[in-house]
Amino acid sequence: MDKGEAGRVVVGAKGRLGVSWGQIAEAIGRAPAWTVAALLGQHPVPDAEAKIVAGLLELGEDVEAALRAQPMRGALESAVPTDPTIYRFYEVLQVYGPAIKELIHEEFGDGIMSAINFRMDVKRVEDPAGDRVVVTLDGKFLPYQW
Amino acid sequence: MDKGEAGRVVVGAKGRLGVSWGQIAEAIGRAPAWTVAALLGQHPVPDAEAKIVAGLLELGEDVEAALRAQPMRGALESAVPTDPTIYRFYEVLQVYGPAIKELIHEEFGDGIMSAINFRMDVKRVEDPAGDRVVVTLDGKFLPYQW
Amino acid sequence: MDKGEAGRVVVGAKGRLGVSWGQIAEAIGRAPAWTVAALLGQHPVPDAEAKIVAGLLELGEDVEAALRAQPMRGALESAVPTDPTIYRFYEVLQVYGPAIKELIHEEFGDGIMSAINFRMDVKRVEDPAGDRVVVTLDGKFLPYQW
Amino acid sequence: MDKGEAGRVVVGAKGRLGVSWGQIAEAIGRAPAWTVAALLGQHPVPDAEAKIVAGLLELGEDVEAALRAQPMRGALESAVPTDPTIYRFYEVLQVYGPAIKELIHEEFGDGIMSAINFRMDVKRVEDPAGDRVVVTLDGKFLPYQW
Amino acid sequence: MDKGEAGRVVVGAKGRLGVSWGQIAEAIGRAPAWTVAALLGQHPVPDAEAKIVAGLLELGEDVEAALRAQPMRGALESAVPTDPTIYRFYEVLQVYGPAIKELIHEEFGDGIMSAINFRMDVKRVEDPAGDRVVVTLDGKFLPYQW
Amino acid sequence: MDKGEAGRVVVGAKGRLGVSWGQIAEAIGRAPAWTVAALLGQHPVPDAEAKIVAGLLELGEDVEAALRAQPMRGALESAVPTDPTIYRFYEVLQVYGPAIKELIHEEFGDGIMSAINFRMDVKRVEDPAGDRVVVTLDGKFLPYQW
Amino acid sequence: MDKGEAGRVVVGAKGRLGVSWGQIAEAIGRAPAWTVAALLGQHPVPDAEAKIVAGLLELGEDVEAALRAQPMRGALESAVPTDPTIYRFYEVLQVYGPAIKELIHEEFGDGIMSAINFRMDVKRVEDPAGDRVVVTLDGKFLPYQW
Amino acid sequence: MDKGEAGRVVVGAKGRLGVSWGQIAEAIGRAPAWTVAALLGQHPVPDAEAKIVAGLLELGEDVEAALRAQPMRGALESAVPTDPTIYRFYEVLQVYGPAIKELIHEEFGDGIMSAINFRMDVKRVEDPAGDRVVVTLDGKFLPYQW
Amino acid sequence: MDKGEAGRVVVGAKGRLGVSWGQIAEAIGRAPAWTVAALLGQHPVPDAEAKIVAGLLELGEDVEAALRAQPMRGALESAVPTDPTIYRFYEVLQVYGPAIKELIHEEFGDGIMSAINFRMDVKRVEDPAGDRVVVTLDGKFLPYQW
Amino acid sequence: MDKGEAGRVVVGAKGRLGVSWGQIAEAIGRAPAWTVAALLGQHPVPDAEAKIVAGLLELGEDVEAALRAQPMRGALESAVPTDPTIYRFYEVLQVYGPAIKELIHEEFGDGIMSAINFRMDVKRVEDPAGDRVVVTLDGKFLPYQW
Repeated sequence: MDKGEAGRVVVGAKGRLGVSWGQIAEAIGRAPAWTVAALLGQHPVPDAEAKIVAGLLELGEDVEAALRAQPMRGALESAVPTDPTIYRFYEVLQVYGPAIKELIHEEFGDGIMSAINFRMDVKRVEDPAGDRVVVTLDGKFLPYQW
Repeated sequence: MDKGEAGRVVVGAKGRLGVSWGQIAEAIGRAPAWTVAALLGQHPVPDAEAKIVAGLLELGEDVEAALRAQPMRGALESAVPTDPTIYRFYEVLQVYGPAIKELIHEEFGDGIMSAINFRMDVKRVEDPAGDRVVVTLDGKFLPYQW
Repeated sequence: MDKGEAGRVVVGAKGRLGVSWGQIAEAIGRAPAWTVAALLGQHPVPDAEAKIVAGLLELGEDVEAALRAQPMRGALESAVPTDPTIYRFYEVLQVYGPAIKELIHEEFGDGIMSAINFRMDVKRVEDPAGDRVVVTLDGKFLPYQW
Repeated sequence: MDKGEAGRVVVGAKGRLGVSWGQIAEAIGRAPAWTVAALLGQHPVPDAEAKIVAGLLELGEDVEAALRAQPMRGALESAVPTDPTIYRFYEVLQVYGPAIKELIHEEFGDGIMSAINFRMDVKRVEDPAGDRVVVTLDGKFLPYQW
Repeated sequence: MDKGEAGRVVVGAKGRLGVSWGQIAEAIGRAPAWTVAALLGQHPVPDAEAKIVAGLLELGEDVEAALRAQPMRGALESAVPTDPTIYRFYEVLQVYGPAIKELIHEEFGDGIMSAINFRMDVKRVEDPAGDRVVVTLDGKFLPYQW
Repeated sequence: MDKGEAGRVVVGAKGRLGVSWGQIAEAIGRAPAWTVAALLGQHPVPDAEAKIVAGLLELGEDVEAALRAQPMRGALESAVPTDPTIYRFYEVLQVYGPAIKELIHEEFGDGIMSAINFRMDVKRVEDPAGDRVVVTLDGKFLPYQW
Repeated sequence: MDKGEAGRVVVGAKGRLGVSWGQIAEAIGRAPAWTVAALLGQHPVPDAEAKIVAGLLELGEDVEAALRAQPMRGALESAVPTDPTIYRFYEVLQVYGPAIKELIHEEFGDGIMSAINFRMDVKRVEDPAGDRVVVTLDGKFLPYQW
Repeated sequence: MDKGEAGRVVVGAKGRLGVSWGQIAEAIGRAPAWTVAALLGQHPVPDAEAKIVAGLLELGEDVEAALRAQPMRGALESAVPTDPTIYRFYEVLQVYGPAIKELIHEEFGDGIMSAINFRMDVKRVEDPAGDRVVVTLDGKFLPYQW
Repeated sequence: MDKGEAGRVVVGAKGRLGVSWGQIAEAIGRAPAWTVAALLGQHPVPDAEAKIVAGLLELGEDVEAALRAQPMRGALESAVPTDPTIYRFYEVLQVYGPAIKELIHEEFGDGIMSAINFRMDVKRVEDPAGDRVVVTLDGKFLPYQW
Repeated sequence: MDKGEAGRVVVGAKGRLGVSWGQIAEAIGRAPAWTVAALLGQHPVPDAEAKIVAGLLELGEDVEAALRAQPMRGALESAVPTDPTIYRFYEVLQVYGPAIKELIHEEFGDGIMSAINFRMDVKRVEDPAGDRVVVTLDGKFLPYQW
């Protein structure tokens, strides 16, 4: 069983058993964004966490093994995503990508925000004009360094 | 003069005169990320702000007119960006895109984070293990609504 | 069973039982365009509606479960559709896309027509020179708003 | 001068002289959507209308000649448009394309909505929950006919 | 069973039983080009014709049902076809496409040859220097008409 | 001057002088489709014909030289053409390509229609239900021959 | 069974039975390059040859039938091949393609080397500095001829 | 001046002065295929040869300098070439690529034909059934060798 | 069983049995990078080595046969890899590719580093500022040689 | 002047003045690979180094300014490079990419080789069987770290 299939089994079990991503994240003591990405196949799940998830979601050993495996990362089905919820983040890149680059260079000098030494989260912020999705991307600055 | 060329003139003038994006943003009373994106050609700059920027950066009238014009948005030169500083954000989408989607749906139900009713910012957060780039994407939740 | 397969089962059952999209839409009290898009896998179908559809089309539980699931949206098999009935709408975009953009900006200012807070319908309008297909796209205007 | 360049000259002159698309459309007695598409280079402009537009916008003869020329149609810069205002219509196609196809076939039988014997318009419809962009696509039904 | 698979079954049965496309076309009273395209999955086959074909080629009910179904059209496996027999027609488009466009506009004015109200045929024309393939494409002229 | 630019000069001169493709073709004693394709840059124009065309359209020597040059053939701006008049022929290939292939093989055996030993024409055929564009593609059959 | 699968069966049987391409080619009295291409699915194998190959390689009737079938030609898995042994020939085209074109035109006039009336072979030529692969492509010259 | 432009100047001068590729190749004592590829910009031309060519074709110093420069190789305008004379060689790769690979491996073992230690030529071979283009590709075999 | 599937079986067995790549490489007396690439399907594994690996990893005969087979090489799932660990090497090519080319030409003259007569390795180098991955690519220089 | 143009001016001046990359690297006290990449436009050149290079190569102020500017990185003209010297490194990625990934994970755990905290060099290693190009890629290991 590959990690993509394992992810679909997880989503199915989660729905059937009425368990939320938040509950799974709490059960394994990990951040929700890490937890979801990992269970969808983008991170290897350490043994202890894989066992807990397998118990919680009543997964078979093949699924548990797939969760533990090292992934070949990359979750988009096409270079430009078609799902609107995901596309908006690609659109942010199309509109603000070079601006983010300028601001990083102005503040830090030549370099990048790491996507490896990295954490993120997705929060609801209440707002009388309509609640807001606030996504925080938080990565270590890595200067170009020879 | 098109908005892309105007953006290059702005970057050139900014360098020559030693003015920072932060100073320009402050001069027009706008958020830095909006300011940079707009001056690079991704937003129309209102008349008053265009005039202030033109004064600050000693821009000609053709540049000022280009800044005011309505853009055809989209700043990446290829569907998958090649610049490492920008690519890392595309990579975040490849690794975490479906996880963000799951978390938005779990918290808000079916819908998206708006990229139109949207603001963002780029901050430095000090960290003894190396300072961090923290990018906050903040958009109104829009539920699928017929 | 994924939502694409469920959609194919729905189309098959619909043909076998001689039920029209219009009848299904009426049975669940939803607009026809929403109904078809949802049953083809582009919207999650709420529990009550999924049950009604499953009854009407004699679908198994796995199909019903797939209809209820949250979709990864995007129904075209290639970036440029090849089916002539669908392609004509892509052609409209190639010929009139920038004109639509200009007219939205002239009437509303900088912003977009939402495709989320959105409804549409497809109607036959009789015409002595040949009946016409009239497709109405109706989305909330969203101004660029920081 | 090609029709793309002529279109940019038109947009520039329009802005400089403070003339709206609506005023131009009225001056030549054509629908606004046709007028904008034509002046942006997607339709040949008949002599009389080209002369009126040239007068109104103080265009040179080369621009007028370019407006009259037969276009090589297709206005998107890439197969998938990047501009958000235009992209939303592509997204509508991704989400509702096959549904539109089903509804046309159910109502009319096998065939297409013509994009040639076709008219469209873009309207503002007031709504207390936020005004709406209503785009009507209206094309003759063409049955597959051998 | 989808229409592509049905087409492969038809081709197999045709070979096994030694029936030609010409014989099938004659049996259902349709033009050969329509017949082949339809049986390969590009047109819905009306009930009567589907029954005749099923009888002639000893097809099962699932194949017959697939033949009757409405197709999602588009038969090329890639945007640019690789099979030499098909590629030559793409090459004709690369070399003569704009010339065909000019000649249609000169003779008819602005518009297109319909590919919907359309018939075609493929003929052998004897020639002492080598027989010729003569393909006639015959579609109704559709003027751009608002 | 390259052949593409020469083609644009020819089209411009033709319009300015009110000369039709038919008249040019007649002047050089060539088929119209060959003539247009050649003058748009897809065939080298022999010296005598180039001279006649240059005289008729009052072209400079550089244009005449460009017309005579050997082309790098291929006139479509993208793999899938966007212009509707040209696209319909691509659509014919998407819908009927494999059918044409089957019919050629049934009639002639394994081989192709040559696009080199080839002639074509575009004709208007009157029809009470609307005149028709009839395009005849006529190429020598070439059997696969080792 | 399709021709691709048949090709994989052939390669498997060949390995298992220790038969070389050269032996197969000799058994059917065909050139090696034709033989390999045909058995990999790029040519229809005539009945007599198919029977001999089936006997030699102990193939089932379904494989033999697939070998006889008319192919949809095109063997590369992507437009630009990734396998180094095949890629080098693509590289030859990138580096020498236009030179080959110039030399054909200089020697023969405007036209092509046929890939249909065509034969090729792959030979080892001994060389003290390292043996050489010599590939001869030999096709009939076809002049552009209207 | 870049090497592409230099190539176009060479082709122009060659035509104007009536010098053939064969004559140029002879003048510099190089194989014709090498000579044409090099002058079209795919190889650096050594000083002595560049000087001879410049004399023969009356080229300026900037052209001569461009001919001497190291190229960024790759002459096709798109991944799949559109020019028919060049395309046929791509088609050969589509039809015979895997066969060539099999034959190289059978004869030599695992490895490739070098495209670097490589020579080729294009010859006319007379044939009563029509003269033939014979292209010989001759590269050193390189075994995979760790 | 194809080589890709065999590779997945190898990775699974390796994990299940707790054998490292280093142990496998040592068992067959090959460099680790060669070993891993070969077992993942990019090189044919000689009989003796295949037998040892099959013993060590308890593989079936079908897997062993697949390991021995000649590969169609090319392991990336898309032209631009999405997995971050692999992508960084693509990024190195985007940033340093032309520089590597300049340095090879300056040191060796016109030519390439062979990827066939080639070996590589991946090493950990300890560093107080964080250990380093050192990848050495070592290929024979091949001069362009006619 | 953009950095690409500046790079071309540098290469021209270098050739005209007979200065090598090695001499430039030495003059600014930087590694050759960094120096070449930077001067070709992939790194910003610090003021002091830019001044030295400008003096050495007799560059104008506009070139010097362009060298100092922050680059939008990415030097390949297409996703898959066509130049053989560069392509071989892409081929290494196609053949060895997943093997490198496995070896990094085995040695270091889940993570990447940084392409930012990175240095490389290109060396000639003498070898009686033909000198070798040895490219060393040396980047800090970055573990996935939340």
